[in-house]
Amino acid sequence: MLNFTFSNKTRIHFGEQQIKQVTQEIPLDARVLITYGGGSIKKNGVYDQVIAALTGHTVFEFSGIEPNPSYETSMKAVALVKQENIDYILAVGGGSVIDASKFIAAAAHFNGEPWDILIKGAAVESAIKLGAVLTLPATGSESNGGSVITKLATKDKLPFMSAHVLPLFAVLDPSVMDSLPARQLSNGVVDAFIHTTEQYLTYDVDAKIQDRFAEGILLTLIEEGPKLFSAEKTNAVNANVMWSATQALNGLIGSGVPHDWATHMIGHELTASFGLDHAQTLAIVLPRLMWEMRESKEGKLLQYAERVWGITEGDVETRIKQVIEKTEQFFHSVQMKTRLSDYDLDATSIDVVIEQLERHGMTQLGERQLVTLERSRNILMNSL
Amino acid sequence: MLNFTFSNKTRIHFGEQQIKQVTQEIPLDARVLITYGGGSIKKNGVYDQVIAALTGHTVFEFSGIEPNPSYETSMKAVALVKQENIDYILAVGGGSVIDASKFIAAAAHFNGEPWDILIKGAAVESAIKLGAVLTLPATGSESNGGSVITKLATKDKLPFMSAHVLPLFAVLDPSVMDSLPARQLSNGVVDAFIHTTEQYLTYDVDAKIQDRFAEGILLTLIEEGPKLFSAEKTNAVNANVMWSATQALNGLIGSGVPHDWATHMIGHELTASFGLDHAQTLAIVLPRLMWEMRESKEGKLLQYAERVWGITEGDVETRIKQVIEKTEQFFHSVQMKTRLSDYDLDATSIDVVIEQLERHGMTQLGERQLVTLERSRNILMNSL
Repeated sequence: MLNFTFSNKTRIHFGEQQIKQVTQEIPLDARVLITYGGGSIKKNGVYDQVIAALTGHTVFEFSGIEPNPSYETSMKAVALVKQENIDYILAVGGGSVIDASKFIAAAAHFNGEPWDILIKGAAVESAIKLGAVLTLPATGSESNGGSVITKLATKDKLPFMSAHVLPLFAVLDPSVMDSLPARQLSNGVVDAFIHTTEQYLTYDVDAKIQDRFAEGILLTLIEEGPKLFSAEKTNAVNANVMWSATQALNGLIGSGVPHDWATHMIGHELTASFGLDHAQTLAIVLPRLMWEMRESKEGKLLQYAERVWGITEGDVETRIKQVIEKTEQFFHSVQMKTRLSDYDLDATSIDVVIEQLERHGMTQLGERQLVTLERSRNILMNSL
Repeated sequence: MLNFTFSNKTRIHFGEQQIKQVTQEIPLDARVLITYGGGSIKKNGVYDQVIAALTGHTVFEFSGIEPNPSYETSMKAVALVKQENIDYILAVGGGSVIDASKFIAAAAHFNGEPWDILIKGAAVESAIKLGAVLTLPATGSESNGGSVITKLATKDKLPFMSAHVLPLFAVLDPSVMDSLPARQLSNGVVDAFIHTTEQYLTYDVDAKIQDRFAEGILLTLIEEGPKLFSAEKTNAVNANVMWSATQALNGLIGSGVPHDWATHMIGHELTASFGLDHAQTLAIVLPRLMWEMRESKEGKLLQYAERVWGITEGDVETRIKQVIEKTEQFFHSVQMKTRLSDYDLDATSIDVVIEQLERHGMTQLGERQLVTLERSRNILMNSL
């Protein structure tokens, strides 16, 4: 196990009817900005529950945060935050709304050009207080300090991390998943799954708890994910998927182990340049990345094959081929496609992605920095 | 899954040479009381590292905290805390030292007779700030708000819980385990194991992540525990056992599931009346409790048998007998005995325990309150 420091202060309120916990979480004298997306929360009852919980508070609203939230939209919210002296942001939505809210919270306190937080890694010294009501389990953003923002003008999709933007609390009510369209459920399951593999399918450092917990998340998503698209969808299924997604990226399984994230970095470029959903890009890249990097990941790929899929027979190459096939079949079972051609992308798109990776300095990705541009190209060519 | 609120703010510094993190964790202007036990920290180098990390701080010391820490000893520390206006307690030791430090931290701020916190469940409204340097992985006390204190005068061993006594930080350096005697390592492994079963071997509420994480802790302890007593003991083994013990009782695997704790409550009386080590009592009680309560725990016992021990053959009774035997063999493999007679206790001791359980209102224990005094007696009679 590697040395680590782990801390996660987000208080989680989990279960049906938990949105009312917002009342005691946000001080009555706070000036609250509710941030949200396209308005689905007004149809599924979440908005009404949030407003009821904030009775007596001074409340403002900012809506229209898009998937793959943009710098441009976020900066409009920053102007509102400053104008109205907002001192608490309540993000009501999925990872995009929460990520945007983190950037808004940091940018409002930032001296200088806030884009520097993303493009130059400028330090975030403080931020406006943040809470979250999660409506889409996927990114884990409700309980971590990470955020990914896209600058529309330049098609730059870049991450930043800061403990200052960690939500102080998060409400996870699994019943909100009943109103989600299938595409968002697919995205959520695959995103949580690949967050887990990014911290697990690397190389062995004898971190047995982290490995077992990661395998537990993968097994749960494999067992529960497909039920979301069938008559077996119950609130218990929703709950298990939702809690999996939080545990996949709250820092716990990633403490004391190497991280990969090459699938994410390549995927971000596919989203920024061609508009694919985040999880769609991950499901395309991961299977071929597992194959391309099979030598340096061999030990963990075989462990994953055995413990998660029960694959123990055959030589190393056979087992690795099998587990990649199983992984891809799992993605299909949650209605997720796994090829660039499924989205009408051909080899010319790969040139664009490789160029953007180079421009963003992503020339040596992965847990051992072995994913060169050439290997990224191989991965994408095999994903056509 | 049951509704829950989960929060754990303890910042963990894990790994070799992490004791130096104490320097930045405790404010320089704090008046610090270091609490510890019998002085083993002066032999294994931990004391010197702590003192070095506190260079420049105003430091006081309180030593002599015993295993199963007493109210009587703790109250001497409370007097010192008040006399010296202590505003930060740094517990350096195992669960006993940390538990005592929690009570000291709460009692120093308590209006009235502090024993009421334990005997009457009086509310803890505030406490002195607390940090921990862990020297013995076992209780999880370094990252939870629980504490168990014994009043020597009356042989009352009672727990209390408060978020106010949660350590703000904890240093977990697995290399300190090299100086531990075998008996303490045995105690640590068994304690962590049974903390896990108390939150797992109950009844199914379809909480798949919690189950998988609990099974991951059990599997890790089964794999790594016996190595502590062999030539295979490495720092990686230490680290895996240490991290298992923290995860076993930091609130995570217990969120959203029923809890048992009958083994602990019965075991506490054995310790209070006859002086057995805490984990020794648990290893005696659990196997027979599993048998006595096999009907109400059937589903989980079979799941435990299959996922942790690979037992899938035979009828229900056969599988349950097998898994109890496996569990007991595991305790033996970490040098832990499992019978009252191993400690020269006979049937007369059982009368004493039952009387004390009755006196403490422990007449309906377990996740369904089905462990009556009669069942507790059966469990102990079968444990002779």
